[in-house]
Amino acid sequence: MVKIVLDCFGGDKSPKENVLGAVEALKEVKDLYLILTGDKAIIEQKLSGLSYDEDRLSIEHAPDVISGEEKPTAAIRNENSSMMKAINLLKTQSDVDGMVSLGSTGALLAGAFLKVGRLNNVIRPAFCPILPTMKGTFVGICDSGANAECTPEYLHQFAIMGSEYMRITYGVETPKVALLNVGTEEHKGDPLRQKAYSLIKSTECINFVGNMESRTLLTGDMDLVVCDGFSGNVLLKSTEGACLEMLKMFKQVFTSSLKNKLGALLLKKSIMEKKDYMDYRNYGGAVMLGTKKIIVKCHGNGIAKTVKNCIIQAYKMQNGGINQAIEEKLAKYAPRKQSAE
Amino acid sequence: MVKIVLDCFGGDKSPKENVLGAVEALKEVKDLYLILTGDKAIIEQKLSGLSYDEDRLSIEHAPDVISGEEKPTAAIRNENSSMMKAINLLKTQSDVDGMVSLGSTGALLAGAFLKVGRLNNVIRPAFCPILPTMKGTFVGICDSGANAECTPEYLHQFAIMGSEYMRITYGVETPKVALLNVGTEEHKGDPLRQKAYSLIKSTECINFVGNMESRTLLTGDMDLVVCDGFSGNVLLKSTEGACLEMLKMFKQVFTSSLKNKLGALLLKKSIMEKKDYMDYRNYGGAVMLGTKKIIVKCHGNGIAKTVKNCIIQAYKMQNGGINQAIEEKLAKYAPRKQSAE
Repeated sequence: MVKIVLDCFGGDKSPKENVLGAVEALKEVKDLYLILTGDKAIIEQKLSGLSYDEDRLSIEHAPDVISGEEKPTAAIRNENSSMMKAINLLKTQSDVDGMVSLGSTGALLAGAFLKVGRLNNVIRPAFCPILPTMKGTFVGICDSGANAECTPEYLHQFAIMGSEYMRITYGVETPKVALLNVGTEEHKGDPLRQKAYSLIKSTECINFVGNMESRTLLTGDMDLVVCDGFSGNVLLKSTEGACLEMLKMFKQVFTSSLKNKLGALLLKKSIMEKKDYMDYRNYGGAVMLGTKKIIVKCHGNGIAKTVKNCIIQAYKMQNGGINQAIEEKLAKYAPRKQSAE
Repeated sequence: MVKIVLDCFGGDKSPKENVLGAVEALKEVKDLYLILTGDKAIIEQKLSGLSYDEDRLSIEHAPDVISGEEKPTAAIRNENSSMMKAINLLKTQSDVDGMVSLGSTGALLAGAFLKVGRLNNVIRPAFCPILPTMKGTFVGICDSGANAECTPEYLHQFAIMGSEYMRITYGVETPKVALLNVGTEEHKGDPLRQKAYSLIKSTECINFVGNMESRTLLTGDMDLVVCDGFSGNVLLKSTEGACLEMLKMFKQVFTSSLKNKLGALLLKKSIMEKKDYMDYRNYGGAVMLGTKKIIVKCHGNGIAKTVKNCIIQAYKMQNGGINQAIEEKLAKYAPRKQSAE
């Protein structure tokens, strides 16, 4: 039995969609046990009338919710919040394998760092979201916000942890790993990139395809992008932002005249398919890699389907032995040295 | 008379489009003098049959071309290349006001740094491209590749130089300046961003609107983004890349069935207008800010219209007194201190 905690509050549509997602996940996976954290009365109310296996679900009461505006380091001091209750369960209960939250990313990262702790040999846990590519594959971005300042050794470990993640969760046998840089040639970039390049290149277990420029992110030519958390965050959000603005622009075109409306009507089915394909709510979430327990950050705007996908993602990671794989690979190829911290 | 040097080689369609662009610029602006660098016989051949004011054009012979593959620091040692000839004219001839090149960005940046030198008080020159926004305005990204590693003092100066550039070249009276960060709240980001935030915020001549996330780049909510050269490069290229992939995706939809083709036919005019609006070849180029002379980098794929736009951009910058404005503003608000270098 895999045991996952679901933070039932914090998302835009919580707790309703969280609870629905939990019930759907229980239906889909039979050896899954869920602990729901949050206001017990409200969660019970949302559960009433739903059909699910009651032996595989329990509730841990936590009356408070962390808002997106709270400063993460302050927010994590509120032990009565649904998120901190979930994090504390991860920390204290050895049989709890992972958690899913739709709440504040900052608070989740801070809680993960300070309370859950790192796996053996991990210098710094990293945050790794995924995007769908034009080839129908996924690309992971590691790190994407947990570590604004990095050393070459961090990036080296991100390449290994991210590879294991893409392999275990998305079934990519030998994930193609690229280093985010300002050009593709080997000598490009600042000393951080140059040193990371040679560390990654000389590591047998990484399928390194070299430097990449950010313009190729969505081509599907790589499965994992390795970068510092600041530029990874810029990469992720500018790509999302540009796609969104383009969709808006086309929408404007589609409705700007009667003729255009007619044209759009003919295209509607195909465009909705593409839009659906790009909709992050149809996928899982971003994960923390390198923490002692599995942590999945579901998009704050997630719906029941998204929550369910994130729970199943955590389940797959646990079943695939992600943390053991990371520890083994790091011990062999990139052990933590005191001097690299 | 404004005197601009045009590097006639190095672009994908050079020298033909470069020469055509030069002739068009001379027709449009009457107090403009152009020096064309490159293989004299070939340039003369391209000029033959074209009608232009011969008193306002001369050629400086340079038989070689710098390729995109050459390492910049090695490339700039070839004094016989059309680009280095242009840079040397900037350096040695006091009446030459600026240059335009379609060649290797790396070589141009290296040449600008090492040969042309900085204006008074400039710590580091910055590279500033522009993108069209969804509001029909332009947004500048400063720095976007010249300085991978920055100090808060660099970013402070980029905000001032970029503001002067947007004001003088694009007529934005008080350009809205945002600092690229991983969140919008004041406390966000690493120490570099936090210190730059307070420097920029406390500078009267900057219309600072605070931190921005990269997803809002194209909204038109800001006129200038201030960032280190590494993340600026990521921002620019990921935005371009995502827009391009979205266009490809829509193109695929438009041709995937007879019904879709018919729909696309109805939309064609409006979509071509939008595509045209986003086509960088219809605008000027990226500029170096803070160098002693004006330097405009035209896109390597530029056509005659692009070259003409870049020449006129350089002309406008010179006529608007960009370099005097930068020197004055820096002297008053952000003088260079030895310790900040």
